[in-house]
Amino acid sequence: MKKVAVILSGCGVYDGTEIHEATSTLIALSMRGISYQCFAPNIMQHHVVNHLTGEEMEEQRNVLVESARIARGDIKEIGDFSAEIYDAVIFPGGFGVAKNLCDLAFKGAECEVNEDIRKVILWMVKEEKPIGALCISPAMIAKVLPHADLTIGQDQDTIDVIEAMEGVHHKTKSCEVIVDEKYKLATTPCYMLDVSIAEVFQGALNIVDEIIQLWEEKK
Amino acid sequence: MKKVAVILSGCGVYDGTEIHEATSTLIALSMRGISYQCFAPNIMQHHVVNHLTGEEMEEQRNVLVESARIARGDIKEIGDFSAEIYDAVIFPGGFGVAKNLCDLAFKGAECEVNEDIRKVILWMVKEEKPIGALCISPAMIAKVLPHADLTIGQDQDTIDVIEAMEGVHHKTKSCEVIVDEKYKLATTPCYMLDVSIAEVFQGALNIVDEIIQLWEEKK
Repeated sequence: MKKVAVILSGCGVYDGTEIHEATSTLIALSMRGISYQCFAPNIMQHHVVNHLTGEEMEEQRNVLVESARIARGDIKEIGDFSAEIYDAVIFPGGFGVAKNLCDLAFKGAECEVNEDIRKVILWMVKEEKPIGALCISPAMIAKVLPHADLTIGQDQDTIDVIEAMEGVHHKTKSCEVIVDEKYKLATTPCYMLDVSIAEVFQGALNIVDEIIQLWEEKK
Repeated sequence: MKKVAVILSGCGVYDGTEIHEATSTLIALSMRGISYQCFAPNIMQHHVVNHLTGEEMEEQRNVLVESARIARGDIKEIGDFSAEIYDAVIFPGGFGVAKNLCDLAFKGAECEVNEDIRKVILWMVKEEKPIGALCISPAMIAKVLPHADLTIGQDQDTIDVIEAMEGVHHKTKSCEVIVDEKYKLATTPCYMLDVSIAEVFQGALNIVDEIIQLWEEKK
């Protein structure tokens, strides 16, 4: 049975992982008979956002501890990840990617990517194993993998940032997937477009099916 | 377009809504072309559990504010619910149901159900509109609706509690649905059984399809 690592960044769209995208990814993997293991960095969140009001809260929360909510407790520290063990990695979206896994939300093209996350991405490429990325995650990956072909949908501000980092952006509609064959990178916009949760689920399923395709091509 | 209210109890299986069950419910509704609105009570959680360690945390969190994470901010207070507006109500599971929406986790058959939640259930029955309930939620409903036919799966301790409240429990396997025609109540075990997230999703989809069936029967 193939094993996929799903990398989380908290629990909630405004300060962590986008919950629908992460859950859709896990359902899609499970539906295709693929096992998964969630991972997250053991670091503090950039901040905590009240998801009812959109305002910042006077609280501190840990990315690994909050991500464990999505993983029902079954989660590992990102430092325990090995590209020799996992057959693919998937990054769901959410502001947590741009605030906790890197600082793209604040520094744009000048952002820095968390060292452990950077290592995961480069290690997968070295092992020639697929990476899937949803929503805003492809923008983070553009910082790590030069000239990667990818998509975050249609948002021009984000496309400008990606192009400033020398990423090769392709505009897409809901559920469409862009594949970069050289990096084995599959990306789709999900909630970077104004779409329904059913479309988010279909996008996640398309990424999983593309990863299966990339495994087949390797044979 | 039909409108369904989804009632949340926080964000995370051990102190709130079970995230996979709630998200699966929203995906299932969206896939079937049904619109949804999330609701939660504006009350403090019974407690906060560190989902990584299982230990209680020295924190206080609000049920409505944390539920908003699952709803991406689009959530209403339970007091704003009207059975005249919504065509069905669905309760996902998670310990939040048994700790925040009622105190079943602590008092068993002697539990009390939050007054607003109780009102929602009785109002839907009065309007002859369907109620769906996943996981542990049917046990809470057993307290409100006497002699309801329902299922939480196979867990004997919970079945004993349901029977002590004069609920009529039917043992079920993964994805099976029990329908009580007199109350238009559809229930399924989801994570009350040791199942995969794909099975949880299928269970949620089965509940939505049963609700559609109950609407058809009314015509």
